[in-house]
Amino acid sequence: MAKKSFPLSKVYSLLEPGPVVLVTTALKGRPNVMTMSWLTMMEFEPPLVGCVMSDLNYSFDILKSTKECVINIPTVEIAAKVVACGNSSGRKVDKFSKFGLTPVAASRVKAPLVGECYANLECKVADAKLAAKYGFFVLEVLKAWIDPLIKHPRTLHHRGRGEFMIAGETIKLPSRMK
Amino acid sequence: MAKKSFPLSKVYSLLEPGPVVLVTTALKGRPNVMTMSWLTMMEFEPPLVGCVMSDLNYSFDILKSTKECVINIPTVEIAAKVVACGNSSGRKVDKFSKFGLTPVAASRVKAPLVGECYANLECKVADAKLAAKYGFFVLEVLKAWIDPLIKHPRTLHHRGRGEFMIAGETIKLPSRMK
Repeated sequence: MAKKSFPLSKVYSLLEPGPVVLVTTALKGRPNVMTMSWLTMMEFEPPLVGCVMSDLNYSFDILKSTKECVINIPTVEIAAKVVACGNSSGRKVDKFSKFGLTPVAASRVKAPLVGECYANLECKVADAKLAAKYGFFVLEVLKAWIDPLIKHPRTLHHRGRGEFMIAGETIKLPSRMK
Repeated sequence: MAKKSFPLSKVYSLLEPGPVVLVTTALKGRPNVMTMSWLTMMEFEPPLVGCVMSDLNYSFDILKSTKECVINIPTVEIAAKVVACGNSSGRKVDKFSKFGLTPVAASRVKAPLVGECYANLECKVADAKLAAKYGFFVLEVLKAWIDPLIKHPRTLHHRGRGEFMIAGETIKLPSRMK
């Protein structure tokens, strides 16, 4: 899949709709991936993203120590892999290999991109002040990639307990909002 | 519209999919409403919600001083009103009256519920440590309401510049995730 560079100024348009994401990290060359749906945009440019990760997650300590991750946005085609990543721990399993996900080298961080996701956001931790209390990290997106062939991504939006709303039709209203 | 009380333990299932919301506040009996799409769940129960509000917004100072608001979840039927609320300021306009929204008395806070929204979450500010730097507030949901007749809410998900994805079909996969 040939990904294209995506403008940082438009990253908000990928995350604002609220898709489930796969967050990748890497520790000593070993990549891990977890499923996450608790995240929000915090600033347009440079793009800041706030995300919540339980300290019970294997990724929590890796993110805290390496200060790097990639936010990958999957679509319904790989829904089963997204759920599988959310139901297993990287402490026990190499999820990339077990679930057939392809780690692709990133340009700015050591954590890999997930090849099967239509968009990938390379991030560094910008602020971990609320990490101890809420598992809350402020991430800065350093580099963004997109599959230019996917115009209407059928993203997944978690309603809880394995129930996902799939992105439906798009409407456009006259607006001065960014 | 007869709203029913909704369990606090299930509030995450309303916000996790990432809908645009209307946030209401009240100052000295005068209600205001703004459109927001930068928010995330932070804890299941009691439900904590992180949200980002620019300090340029009229609602910012009201939320900071009153420490109360309501998160209202609209559906596509009132998309034009949602955009109108995002394109005007409560400093100049009574948006409830101008855009035909119905303020309904809340039970735990002074800010009103928006009658036209299918769900309403009464909130207090639990943590404003990151408000100065990022406009970030941690809210605790005190009481939740839902329209029991709406089983498949066609929520709005902002892609930027007035473009909204509308909630599509739902799929269910076997999962141990909450």
